[in-house]
Amino acid sequence: MAPASDDDIVRLGMAKGGMTLLDDQQAHALYAAMGPAREISGGSAANTLAGLAALGASCSFIGQVADDQLGAVFAHDIRAGGIAFATPARGAEPSTARCLIFVTPDGQRTMNTFLGASQYLPADALDDSVIADAAVLYLEGYLWDPEEPRRAMRRAIATARGAGRKVALTLSDAFVISRHGDDFRTLIADGAIDILFANEHELAALTGLDDFHDGIAALAPQVPTLVVTRSEKGAHAVCSGEHAMVAASPVAQVIDTTGAGDLFAAGFLFGYVRGAALETCLGLGAICAAEVISHYGARPEADLKAMVAPLLG
Amino acid sequence: MAPASDDDIVRLGMAKGGMTLLDDQQAHALYAAMGPAREISGGSAANTLAGLAALGASCSFIGQVADDQLGAVFAHDIRAGGIAFATPARGAEPSTARCLIFVTPDGQRTMNTFLGASQYLPADALDDSVIADAAVLYLEGYLWDPEEPRRAMRRAIATARGAGRKVALTLSDAFVISRHGDDFRTLIADGAIDILFANEHELAALTGLDDFHDGIAALAPQVPTLVVTRSEKGAHAVCSGEHAMVAASPVAQVIDTTGAGDLFAAGFLFGYVRGAALETCLGLGAICAAEVISHYGARPEADLKAMVAPLLG
Repeated sequence: MAPASDDDIVRLGMAKGGMTLLDDQQAHALYAAMGPAREISGGSAANTLAGLAALGASCSFIGQVADDQLGAVFAHDIRAGGIAFATPARGAEPSTARCLIFVTPDGQRTMNTFLGASQYLPADALDDSVIADAAVLYLEGYLWDPEEPRRAMRRAIATARGAGRKVALTLSDAFVISRHGDDFRTLIADGAIDILFANEHELAALTGLDDFHDGIAALAPQVPTLVVTRSEKGAHAVCSGEHAMVAASPVAQVIDTTGAGDLFAAGFLFGYVRGAALETCLGLGAICAAEVISHYGARPEADLKAMVAPLLG
Repeated sequence: MAPASDDDIVRLGMAKGGMTLLDDQQAHALYAAMGPAREISGGSAANTLAGLAALGASCSFIGQVADDQLGAVFAHDIRAGGIAFATPARGAEPSTARCLIFVTPDGQRTMNTFLGASQYLPADALDDSVIADAAVLYLEGYLWDPEEPRRAMRRAIATARGAGRKVALTLSDAFVISRHGDDFRTLIADGAIDILFANEHELAALTGLDDFHDGIAALAPQVPTLVVTRSEKGAHAVCSGEHAMVAASPVAQVIDTTGAGDLFAAGFLFGYVRGAALETCLGLGAICAAEVISHYGARPEADLKAMVAPLLG
């Protein structure tokens, strides 16, 4: 991650606020054009688990790193957060995934991702017993794009459902829906998704409906729990016909929006597995999202347990 | 770097505020006991150059990284800061140096350093023309300990002096003085050091005098420019019999003291090469040190040029 000006975003031809996939060569070229940076572990689902673990949930992470220094750093940070992580590192090439994130003075993040080893997570790396034992299996839409993780996620869904567990999916980005929308719509129609996370742009992309309320009305009957985040406009959830809304939690200064959706999902799921009311789940999500956008990086830094304590009574 | 509690410092047997050298095995064990961390480029002299470059000085860095991911990150950050860096990476083993830094809530940093590749900087990696062309050669005392960099630094001193350039040395840490104090005292007596940076503990270690003013009085006649930093008590400089003092610049909150001395040296040297008054040089140092202790990491983040502009008129 590095600070950048709006001029930098234009000069480097990036779509501000978006996520672009890079190959190895593009990643090297863009990194060379980036200012002095800092390295912080990330990854959408991994950020969510970091939030859940910080809140006190018991978590296990499945994901593919390479046998390199950044992979070791990633594994360290996951485990140091109290999260089990048993997926063996792959070889040294391609390297561990990385995301070059340019953060503009308004706190907006523009992401450029080299998927590296992460796109080779094989289905046989899954520990079925871990999945069968977990209250919720949480899947990241980003990894639906490469073939091997998609196959692994299909198997994980079958395992979780066979064990009577809940399956949660975050749609991650509109580009994933443009390429795999039919897969997601089929999974939803088949009842394979219990909890669906989307932001309003992803909701529009999935439903084909530009109006937020139309989108909610179309999708909500198809998933037991639908959660739609709307940045500074808060979030909306529907569970078995019950609607709930939450305003965005106040933040003194938005420093870096990276991980806002990931941490919203963390807070929501923490409430969900405790059987909290829908509005409470949303409130927990809003608090965790507000914490992560108040500083650089997509992993929580403040004491989330203490921050959510008033909501949990 | 990772946040830590005072209990962590005690539990892990560290000397709070100090710098301890680790071998590879110790570094791995301590890293495993460290919380989720972030990676930020550092290195004492490299931090000073990052500050000088941010102020607008033309800089070239000489130092040894390994051919690994963290070495590439270090080289990126140096070059992205506008600093020339031509020392070729060594092989992959040992890895690039790293420092495990535990930052307590009072902002104090406790450092644990694995020197890795940095202790093998060979004299033949020096580009004599770069040294001969530079107004100031700045040396880090930390690297006087391992044999190869010490030999390289002795050659660099000879090159700089042969070209009529100034030689600056920071004593870095009392442990270096306990092992190499005679070397430093000889260099000083021989007139090889034009600018000497020390903190008050290093001053006491070098002179054997506990009293700050006694130490200054003993050492000042031996070096053309002596700069002694005293943390929150400010700093004191003596140049050809002229004394100057500066108070510490105000900081809203001390977040992480890592790099305070490095950035003080950056500000001072920036004034020095411009021929600024001694008091101005100290003021520049105080401003740069205050910036770096107001956030995590030992490299400047704010616009140092703008911050020092009022002092430079």
